[in-house]
Amino acid sequence: MSIVEKELLRAREAAKAANMLTREQKDQALAVMGEHILRATDEILTANKKDLTRAQEAFETQARLDRLALDEQRILAMVQGLHAVIALDDPIGEVMASWTRPNGLLIEQVRVPFGVVGVIYEARPNVTVDTAALTLKTGNVVVLRGGKEAYETNAALTGALRRALEEVGLPSDLVMMVTDTDRRSVDALIRARGMVDLVIPRGGAGLIRHVVEHATVPVIETGVGNCHVYVDANAKLDMAVEITLNAKTQRPSVCNAAETLLIHEAIAQDFLPLIARRMIASGVELRLDEPSFFVLQNHSALSHNEERTLALLQRAVEEDYATEFLGLILAVKVVSSLDEAIDHIGRYGTGHSEAIVTEDLATAEEFLRRVDAAAVYHNASTRFTDGFEFGFGAEIGISTQKLHARGPMGLRELTSYKYRVRGTGQTRT
Amino acid sequence: MSIVEKELLRAREAAKAANMLTREQKDQALAVMGEHILRATDEILTANKKDLTRAQEAFETQARLDRLALDEQRILAMVQGLHAVIALDDPIGEVMASWTRPNGLLIEQVRVPFGVVGVIYEARPNVTVDTAALTLKTGNVVVLRGGKEAYETNAALTGALRRALEEVGLPSDLVMMVTDTDRRSVDALIRARGMVDLVIPRGGAGLIRHVVEHATVPVIETGVGNCHVYVDANAKLDMAVEITLNAKTQRPSVCNAAETLLIHEAIAQDFLPLIARRMIASGVELRLDEPSFFVLQNHSALSHNEERTLALLQRAVEEDYATEFLGLILAVKVVSSLDEAIDHIGRYGTGHSEAIVTEDLATAEEFLRRVDAAAVYHNASTRFTDGFEFGFGAEIGISTQKLHARGPMGLRELTSYKYRVRGTGQTRT
Repeated sequence: MSIVEKELLRAREAAKAANMLTREQKDQALAVMGEHILRATDEILTANKKDLTRAQEAFETQARLDRLALDEQRILAMVQGLHAVIALDDPIGEVMASWTRPNGLLIEQVRVPFGVVGVIYEARPNVTVDTAALTLKTGNVVVLRGGKEAYETNAALTGALRRALEEVGLPSDLVMMVTDTDRRSVDALIRARGMVDLVIPRGGAGLIRHVVEHATVPVIETGVGNCHVYVDANAKLDMAVEITLNAKTQRPSVCNAAETLLIHEAIAQDFLPLIARRMIASGVELRLDEPSFFVLQNHSALSHNEERTLALLQRAVEEDYATEFLGLILAVKVVSSLDEAIDHIGRYGTGHSEAIVTEDLATAEEFLRRVDAAAVYHNASTRFTDGFEFGFGAEIGISTQKLHARGPMGLRELTSYKYRVRGTGQTRT
Repeated sequence: MSIVEKELLRAREAAKAANMLTREQKDQALAVMGEHILRATDEILTANKKDLTRAQEAFETQARLDRLALDEQRILAMVQGLHAVIALDDPIGEVMASWTRPNGLLIEQVRVPFGVVGVIYEARPNVTVDTAALTLKTGNVVVLRGGKEAYETNAALTGALRRALEEVGLPSDLVMMVTDTDRRSVDALIRARGMVDLVIPRGGAGLIRHVVEHATVPVIETGVGNCHVYVDANAKLDMAVEITLNAKTQRPSVCNAAETLLIHEAIAQDFLPLIARRMIASGVELRLDEPSFFVLQNHSALSHNEERTLALLQRAVEEDYATEFLGLILAVKVVSSLDEAIDHIGRYGTGHSEAIVTEDLATAEEFLRRVDAAAVYHNASTRFTDGFEFGFGAEIGISTQKLHARGPMGLRELTSYKYRVRGTGQTRT
């Protein structure tokens, strides 16, 4: 039996207890977890330093080092996260529906935990604590498989969480960490049918593709977003500028940021200079189709003499429309109709978040109905696709599949249900 | 491009229309489908004869031939099935929840179709019509991949369905049939990421395992059931006899039939002779653990002289408890406690349907809470796990996984949702 298999057996055993926990038990454990993390601050920071040193020696990018690095403030934020989860209602045991059949059977649909949930993630160590909190609150046992580069940090964090569970008299195996850092341990986890009820990959497109293609346990695919803003012929141009700018630049590295701007040809002449000026001021490179390039190239309002402006006005190639830039690049395309915009989104979109800006309600409704994405917006930024912004109080990820959960996933999306049927001796005839 | 890929492209295109259909359009199409099936009765029966002849030549079992065979009555039943689906509410467009955020964003969670649903099934041709009706009503495009042995019949049925769609002015590609009967076409279907939103295998354990292990598109696993009846120390024995008998014998070939009987030791002496006599009268072979074998071997109420009785009293081996017999065999085990019963079910059960018979409410509640299965029963037969018995009016299968749907799946379980967000220019800060 491999290390991972042994760890999964322990997780399976702990799941029997997790299912039966009261809200009070779970909230108490979460509070004590916070205390143990604070108490272990030095230990966690020392572990984190080891990871950082190794990452520097491996010439990791500055962005990756930033994601990996912890300080006292980031540790405090993790503890605050635990308290935010304490404040949320416990979804387990909720009777979602109930009815009585003509034969007298009382059927109840009751919310239950999944059981054992595997979470596979990359650099950021706060995911360890966030995820453990959300899975504990939903009565699940979590099996954490973090990135190799954060191993020491994750081990220190998990150690603190497990000590807290022990202190409150719960099985420490409610929070499990895969201790085998070999890549094969990921495959062992995602192919453990009957042992793992659900796997959630949180990370880059490569990780998610690997998990989806090799898993035999159920998976929720998260987070790849090639999102669009479509500015309709009847848009308020100033609103369209603010929404597009927000969707692109407020946090360009995340999945709900916009990657392509579609503009109705009727307003392209007016709108393009407005949005281009603001994007250029924000350092956004525009990848323009021929019509939009033509408009901007000749527009007096843009200071074309400046080298910087010229460098930011590029011609788009087909591939740009299929790319999740996750940075300060925006593909731009002029379309002749709503149909063309919807077709473009259907072809290149990833079903994440799509927005229309228009004052025409009929056009807005058609867009909202026909565009096939987790979240469709009228006159708002795509950046709102987020568990906290939706008011869920938490987020384990954003699903881009249609099975089980779509869009932001909070506590409820970490649950399944079962049917509880009460009879008085009924048999089927 | 393979044949299947071309067919999936057509399905994808049709899905855009399917999403927008009104209830009236869908119900009209279903009614006209019924007319076309009746009109094509001769053609369908001729096709069925071809399949039957080939199956006989291939020395298929009588059970398989029975499942494959159509007659006018079975065709009529298919048409009645279409009308049953017409009577059901259209779930698409239902606003499942809606709320307004402090920033004024109105968020609605709206029920939408999956898009393209692949269904892979075996002999019974009525699945073709049932499935097409349920997927059409839920705004999905179905890609049917039936068994090779029913190819001619399924082609004739699909032809009638598609002609009906054309007659009412809808795209005939709303109902697609994979015309490539090679096994590789199954793999093409279950690995068509981005083209197929969901695959549902309906059939034997081998088919389901193949799909789950090789699919890269989301799957709902259906139908493997190793179900238990646990007769507690405080059970009414006559009720326990009726429930166990019903769960085992009312239709032994289906997934919600019981395969193992667990008996509390306190009542084993009294209960075993009662249930054994009835099971033996029904021709059920009992696979008994040592304690139950001992009780029955020496019991005067059973006529042990008869060879037939003796042949039906067998000793159980470990493997019997893990087996879905799907026939007139029942494994029997005496347990010393509720804990032991729950542990046994946890070890050998497939999470389908599990029943307790007891007059002790606290024991019943503990069983209902702790047993991890799609449906858990108190004082009722496991045979009720069924979309019609639950009152759903339809059934596409019984899910044994926890992701998305669990237990009987009706129309609602064939849908996903999306978030529709309406703003007035909101951007994220």
